[in-house]
Amino acid sequence: MTMTERAIPGGEIDIAALPLRADLRGKSPYGAPQLDVAVRLNTNENPYLPPPGLIDDVTESIRAVAADLHRYPDRDAIALRTDLADYLGTATGVELDTVNVWAANGSNEVLQQIMQAFGGPGRTALGFAPSYSMHPIIASGTRTEWVAAPRREDFSLDAATAVRAIEEHRPDIVFVTSPNNPTGQSVPLEDLRTLLAAAPGIVVLDEAYGEFSAAPSGVRLLAEFPTKLIVSRTMSKAFAFAGGRLGYLAAAPAVVDALQLVRLPYHLSVLTQAAARAALRHAEATLGSVAALVAERHRVADALTGLGFPVVHSDANFLLFGGFADPAEAWQSYLDGGVLVRDVGIPGHLRATVGTPAENDAFLNASKEVAARFGIG
Amino acid sequence: MTMTERAIPGGEIDIAALPLRADLRGKSPYGAPQLDVAVRLNTNENPYLPPPGLIDDVTESIRAVAADLHRYPDRDAIALRTDLADYLGTATGVELDTVNVWAANGSNEVLQQIMQAFGGPGRTALGFAPSYSMHPIIASGTRTEWVAAPRREDFSLDAATAVRAIEEHRPDIVFVTSPNNPTGQSVPLEDLRTLLAAAPGIVVLDEAYGEFSAAPSGVRLLAEFPTKLIVSRTMSKAFAFAGGRLGYLAAAPAVVDALQLVRLPYHLSVLTQAAARAALRHAEATLGSVAALVAERHRVADALTGLGFPVVHSDANFLLFGGFADPAEAWQSYLDGGVLVRDVGIPGHLRATVGTPAENDAFLNASKEVAARFGIG
Repeated sequence: MTMTERAIPGGEIDIAALPLRADLRGKSPYGAPQLDVAVRLNTNENPYLPPPGLIDDVTESIRAVAADLHRYPDRDAIALRTDLADYLGTATGVELDTVNVWAANGSNEVLQQIMQAFGGPGRTALGFAPSYSMHPIIASGTRTEWVAAPRREDFSLDAATAVRAIEEHRPDIVFVTSPNNPTGQSVPLEDLRTLLAAAPGIVVLDEAYGEFSAAPSGVRLLAEFPTKLIVSRTMSKAFAFAGGRLGYLAAAPAVVDALQLVRLPYHLSVLTQAAARAALRHAEATLGSVAALVAERHRVADALTGLGFPVVHSDANFLLFGGFADPAEAWQSYLDGGVLVRDVGIPGHLRATVGTPAENDAFLNASKEVAARFGIG
Repeated sequence: MTMTERAIPGGEIDIAALPLRADLRGKSPYGAPQLDVAVRLNTNENPYLPPPGLIDDVTESIRAVAADLHRYPDRDAIALRTDLADYLGTATGVELDTVNVWAANGSNEVLQQIMQAFGGPGRTALGFAPSYSMHPIIASGTRTEWVAAPRREDFSLDAATAVRAIEEHRPDIVFVTSPNNPTGQSVPLEDLRTLLAAAPGIVVLDEAYGEFSAAPSGVRLLAEFPTKLIVSRTMSKAFAFAGGRLGYLAAAPAVVDALQLVRLPYHLSVLTQAAARAALRHAEATLGSVAALVAERHRVADALTGLGFPVVHSDANFLLFGGFADPAEAWQSYLDGGVLVRDVGIPGHLRATVGTPAENDAFLNASKEVAARFGIG
């Protein structure tokens, strides 16, 4: 050892020397590469900076609660849940109460709590692949058996096929993502109703990208299927609050009661509760970007199509587009051109978030080069 | 329904109508009552207000990151983990590296991740009862079988008995709490070494109250037992940061790698990371209260003993004291006297956090009345 090196306690031990669960051995952590690239279109964030009023309000809200940082937060996050119920009720046209809403550190934690309460060992969850890749990962983390059922060739959900899969596997939990990530299509309310009628247990409707879609929210079906339906939402996308980590759900009050049996106490910090409430007060300003992003989505989709890329219809803030013999190589080409997109593991395809007009121009310029290089169009 | 009532979607459904896991049926959520009482000595918070410099620093740190709230946080929380490694290394006299440290939303989440990676279905965790009541609850939440092994009559840990329990049950995870909550005693380094040598798998040493104890930290044993030892810590107690929800651990880097296989991605918000780093910069100011609290602990323990209560020796910021035929009734008497203490479910006993001198005086005044009413002393 030289003078500049220092011994790291336990640094000599390999992960293989640990008594890790067998099903985790050889696995890699989930996550897109976090790279310092000028144009980041890989994690479906809202590209617009939080408005100055929001920054001021978050800051002052934190100052107000910081004097109480030595105390545990409100374990039930009543004020935040009330504000979320107000927002979601207005957004979906369904009057919701505080007791209809639950919140956690990102929708990942919401989904994990759902699987802890209604899934787990000996139980099965079913999703329609490809969809949000955390669904099967959280199933695995809660030891819930995972069944992947198919979609149509164009990645849309065929309700009749879906019902057959539900009837065959009788899953305890069905995951439906609308708009679907990473493909983009919404599921019509009538199809949701069909799936809910067929499901023997819980249906988790993941509406992380709901604000970008013109399709009505599944929240409208809550009164009709109170023992089955859980609608999961997030402030990470349209709300431009990915850094604040706030996921939430709407369900029957009894479902919320059930989740309190598995939630870790005081899971939401006073910081998160205060900042999320401040962000909700500025919903109009942040959600004002949604229309612009939808317009840009149409422009980018048309331009990609014009370049010869097959583009999947999207109701979200991203586009899945194809034509690649080797998506990993194409991903690297985009990166070399200063644009970070996402290789979501779908053969032939890449996914790009809709950014600001300037970011989208950079992406389209890079796409032109990629098309030329890989003989697309 | 009158005009003022409104229908709550799914409000008519009872939890019994839901397909909840069988082991959760009939259970109640964990948590001490959150009551608005003048003197709150029930959750072992640091009673001293965060210093103004900390409040300013937290506020300005949040302002600095708020402009980036639309982006996901650093998934690996490198800067925060580096700061925690610096703090813990200095506090324990063991040079630690960033890769030795992991952090999550409270030590509950740290412990849950440990059980997901090293426990789970078909595996067993063993603890020494009574101890932190979340240990068996998190075991249950991760479907880890829980074994409760005994302590001495005075609630201290007998290493020889503990080793026999470990040898009998061969648990995958052993939980040792030092100082123990809710009883207060530290476990000497020699006893920890004995337990680590006997343990076949992981040993989680929960040092949530470590700063209040003069006993050396188990972190000193990390290099000796790198495949076994995980030391869990929190900023909720001595650091006066319960509202910020920041738990962390020190372990071999391979253990930290293992936990990244089960952690939810982006689990720590930019708010949490920034605020915790700010709080760490003011460690000297907040931890300055530790000596005062320890002095008060001695004063309160002596006074309680003088009133005739049997008091358990404590190295933490709370005292377990006994002599009650009906602790629930005594708890209510304290509450009626404006003092919130904790009924931790140990026959004959209650637990009181050490507060400010004024809060402790209020507690001791109430104790005088309680002693008189219940014929103690």
